[in-house]
Amino acid sequence: MACELYYWPTIQGRGEFVRLALEQAGADYLDMARLKGPGQGVEAMMRLMKDQAVTRPSFAPPFLRDGEVMVGQTAAILAYLGPKLGLAPQAAADRAWLDQIQLTIADLVAEAHDTHHPVDLEAYYKDQKPEAARRAEGFRGKRIAKFLGWLETVLARNPAGPEWLVGARLTYADLSAFQVTEGLRYAFPKAAAKTLKATPKLVDLADRVRALPNIAAYLASERRIAFNEDGIFRHYPELDP
Amino acid sequence: MACELYYWPTIQGRGEFVRLALEQAGADYLDMARLKGPGQGVEAMMRLMKDQAVTRPSFAPPFLRDGEVMVGQTAAILAYLGPKLGLAPQAAADRAWLDQIQLTIADLVAEAHDTHHPVDLEAYYKDQKPEAARRAEGFRGKRIAKFLGWLETVLARNPAGPEWLVGARLTYADLSAFQVTEGLRYAFPKAAAKTLKATPKLVDLADRVRALPNIAAYLASERRIAFNEDGIFRHYPELDP
Repeated sequence: MACELYYWPTIQGRGEFVRLALEQAGADYLDMARLKGPGQGVEAMMRLMKDQAVTRPSFAPPFLRDGEVMVGQTAAILAYLGPKLGLAPQAAADRAWLDQIQLTIADLVAEAHDTHHPVDLEAYYKDQKPEAARRAEGFRGKRIAKFLGWLETVLARNPAGPEWLVGARLTYADLSAFQVTEGLRYAFPKAAAKTLKATPKLVDLADRVRALPNIAAYLASERRIAFNEDGIFRHYPELDP
Repeated sequence: MACELYYWPTIQGRGEFVRLALEQAGADYLDMARLKGPGQGVEAMMRLMKDQAVTRPSFAPPFLRDGEVMVGQTAAILAYLGPKLGLAPQAAADRAWLDQIQLTIADLVAEAHDTHHPVDLEAYYKDQKPEAARRAEGFRGKRIAKFLGWLETVLARNPAGPEWLVGARLTYADLSAFQVTEGLRYAFPKAAAKTLKATPKLVDLADRVRALPNIAAYLASERRIAFNEDGIFRHYPELDP
């Protein structure tokens, strides 16, 4: 049976980290809120979120239904799916390291989001522009370099070599590292270009992921939603002067 | 061999979620940055963070050293430790649910932090007070109720009953739910009191955790650092009018 991904249908957002893993694995999945059949679409997702018969409800999308199992929170979904999709190592210590990397990437994603929503999560960007400018300044000036520099260090110190983040094989963290690199390039093209000059191994990793046949096919397909200003990585030129 | 926890020595912060799990399990652990022997103290932690021989460095504290294994990121540390400490279920689907709850609690913790640091992570609260007031307004008015309401729903829908969050046994998520309840009561006493009236099962859970013999002993000991205004849950009366 196909597993069902539930996420907002018009943005990459946090759901994209799950989509990339499913796509790379060639998994049989349905991106439910983007479909139009019975029990599909955004309305069906909202109904499911409010369904009192669901014993394990998610706080927010994305969440996944895999037969009887429902799981939400991006990093938890990936930790659950990783072994099934062949995108996670076997040993507990290696799984913990993979989880740690994914959670650090999640922190970067959260900070990228906060650049356009620093003081009011439920208001529009246009209603918090001065605050966003200040938040983005620190993000551009220090935080991006700290996060990407950490990923570069992880690659440089990998005893198996700098090809992948964890050991000698592709994991979902590599796909996620690609995604944040793409997102930063879209949202903060100037700051990202500058920072990425100092992280050649990460740039190589992103290139390697982009060239994976399944990922390349996905990126070229209509299934890949374009970055836009409703997502997490938004390009507001005034935030990347 | 004792496992070593590395975290800032003067605050509860994110390290407290790990401390509570170790304490409840009666684990043999050293809170390294709080000790004064050779290889201990904050300076030793900072040296370890910069040590180029560490192949799996953490982006930030907390991190744990358990023999040869090093793991950082609160939720990853707990996912790693949980099974060893008897604070996690066996089945993969149940582990995923536990992870999902922990990550949702982590989101609440991050939002609590952002109430006093909305626009500049590296500046003081006093340098972003108007922005903090605006961020705190939304946090008090909507977000606390949404997060705590979700935890209440998780308890109410647990097929094994509302005693614990996951199944019929204590897990580290219960300890974490207790911790955020305590933190919110400290930081936002008025808003928390109001919100917690609508979440009686969560209040009962927090009381149940507080009364666990190992937790009660820990809370009464000098090992429990008091909440303070260097931590994540800070009491600024102007943010809880």
